[in-house]
Amino acid sequence: MSRSDAVNRRVVLAARPRGAPTPQDFRLEEVAIPKPGEGQVLLRTLYLSLDPYMRNVMNEVPPVYAPSVALGAPMVGGTVSRVVASRHPRLREGDLVLGGAGWQDYALSDGQELFPLGEMARPSMALGVLGMPGFTAYVAMADIGQPAAGETVVVAAATGPVGAVAGQLARLRGARVVGIAGGADKCRHAVEELGFDVCLDRKEPRFAERLAAACPKGIDVYFENVGGEVFEAVLPLLNVGARVPVVGLIAHYNDRTPPPGPNLLPSLMKSVLEKRIRVQGMVILDHYGDRFDAFRRDMGEWVAGGKVTLREDMVEGLENAPTALMGMLEGRNFGKLVVHVADS
Amino acid sequence: MSRSDAVNRRVVLAARPRGAPTPQDFRLEEVAIPKPGEGQVLLRTLYLSLDPYMRNVMNEVPPVYAPSVALGAPMVGGTVSRVVASRHPRLREGDLVLGGAGWQDYALSDGQELFPLGEMARPSMALGVLGMPGFTAYVAMADIGQPAAGETVVVAAATGPVGAVAGQLARLRGARVVGIAGGADKCRHAVEELGFDVCLDRKEPRFAERLAAACPKGIDVYFENVGGEVFEAVLPLLNVGARVPVVGLIAHYNDRTPPPGPNLLPSLMKSVLEKRIRVQGMVILDHYGDRFDAFRRDMGEWVAGGKVTLREDMVEGLENAPTALMGMLEGRNFGKLVVHVADS
Repeated sequence: MSRSDAVNRRVVLAARPRGAPTPQDFRLEEVAIPKPGEGQVLLRTLYLSLDPYMRNVMNEVPPVYAPSVALGAPMVGGTVSRVVASRHPRLREGDLVLGGAGWQDYALSDGQELFPLGEMARPSMALGVLGMPGFTAYVAMADIGQPAAGETVVVAAATGPVGAVAGQLARLRGARVVGIAGGADKCRHAVEELGFDVCLDRKEPRFAERLAAACPKGIDVYFENVGGEVFEAVLPLLNVGARVPVVGLIAHYNDRTPPPGPNLLPSLMKSVLEKRIRVQGMVILDHYGDRFDAFRRDMGEWVAGGKVTLREDMVEGLENAPTALMGMLEGRNFGKLVVHVADS
Repeated sequence: MSRSDAVNRRVVLAARPRGAPTPQDFRLEEVAIPKPGEGQVLLRTLYLSLDPYMRNVMNEVPPVYAPSVALGAPMVGGTVSRVVASRHPRLREGDLVLGGAGWQDYALSDGQELFPLGEMARPSMALGVLGMPGFTAYVAMADIGQPAAGETVVVAAATGPVGAVAGQLARLRGARVVGIAGGADKCRHAVEELGFDVCLDRKEPRFAERLAAACPKGIDVYFENVGGEVFEAVLPLLNVGARVPVVGLIAHYNDRTPPPGPNLLPSLMKSVLEKRIRVQGMVILDHYGDRFDAFRRDMGEWVAGGKVTLREDMVEGLENAPTALMGMLEGRNFGKLVVHVADS
């Protein structure tokens, strides 16, 4: 960590990926540490969150909900940071804040997008169970999924941060939760640590058959944060009145063109019609204003009470963020992926 | 009409269609007029409604919301009937009722599924604007579409009974309504008689471009009662927060297998996610219990006040029902398709 004391290291977007990102799409630079102007703070990044949407904002045509990262600009990302210098009227040196400093050691902020964290035993939780992924699961389950006691809820990417929290929230509402994950170790974790009723390894053969067998009463809620073949296996099992909150589609973020046929869009629409299914997208950025405080209060209680937990997959060093992001897009993370950038 | 006085003519399902139905899939039979038992009424069919769902229930694998028609059984269908003999405690000879007597001159009923109509100047309206199609438009717009003043609403099959009413209801809420119909005469009707702001002929070239030009502020509600290429043209124009009530998919009812690729399902899901779109199916059978009375009151007022109108496409004679249904599945009807079976 010693070099980052003297300079600001940052990872910039060097090239726009075609399909899966490669190491050449990122560049580690060293620049001078900026100085805060009047009303600004200088932030030092302690933890950087890595999340699937980052692949999307690397494209020239950005997703509707966020701008593209410019070529040569630092990659964006949620961070837990320490205020190391302040010319801001309310933020003080030493404050721990949640913000979006991006992939760099230091950043300036005028304080508007910062959320004060107070002191936390594990500040990185503000990027996971108590942050954006947990908040995504919380709002999508409350507003769209709405699982009732006894209903069957299927959650893909069951050990990823959004899926893990979503499944545990459905369990708290009394639903039966069937997880889907890539690998036996993840499945074991979903059942033994997260409390899912069942977890299926999507890498094992005959996935669609095994899913049908695991859902003898059909599926009432499919929490969609993956896309691709999982959804195609879920579709025929959806019950009348099923809800499908769509919060992520990691299987498709690398797509450059629509996949080959057959065209399954009409099949989906027929199911939607006949079974009165509700498919609804949600982008969590919409909800910080009115729901984040309630989320922090509720989730804080559940975490403190041991009712919701989330494994962290901690990567050491900002310079390893590109490799970690590339791995996540292939499902190689196990839990909430966080980069440990500095200690304090 | 004279023969139907002596016998009960009925149209039965002779064979299950593969793809589009053909005349050989139907058979006109003559059987004895049944006699009502204790608690039953004998109904004489005055008007028979023809609706797209009928194609679906001809399949061996029925839609989720209704059973298949058995081979050799009369085709099902909504009817306006006259009670011509009664052994029922509350229904009297001469009563006009809405029911589901199917494709036949006479039917027995125990009264449970009958809705008394009183006297109506145009009883066939109980099959259209004041019946199932109007009710479908009413509930789907109120519960899912929810158009606000100034929003852009696109309605396919704009002169069909569901689309025509849906568009007029959106206009009543102050939305700008863009219709889509097959042919210049239908488009003229949509604008001049139904009050749509614009109507596009989907048979003219460059439909997707013309739709984009007609919706300069994008699309807030797409009322889906068609499917197929119209939806594919709508998809890129949907706004953030758009709603897509799905009440019919006539373009796909003859499909035997998924159409060839590319597979547009991922594109839909990406749009749903990024634009927070709500796609939700509705089957009107779910809502008769709790909403039909309010619908009849509201729609009755709007029709009486000239605020909602619906053209009828009247076909003469039960024996012509098969040809009329086949035409409807190809878009050859113009307005609500009703078979006039008997005068009184």
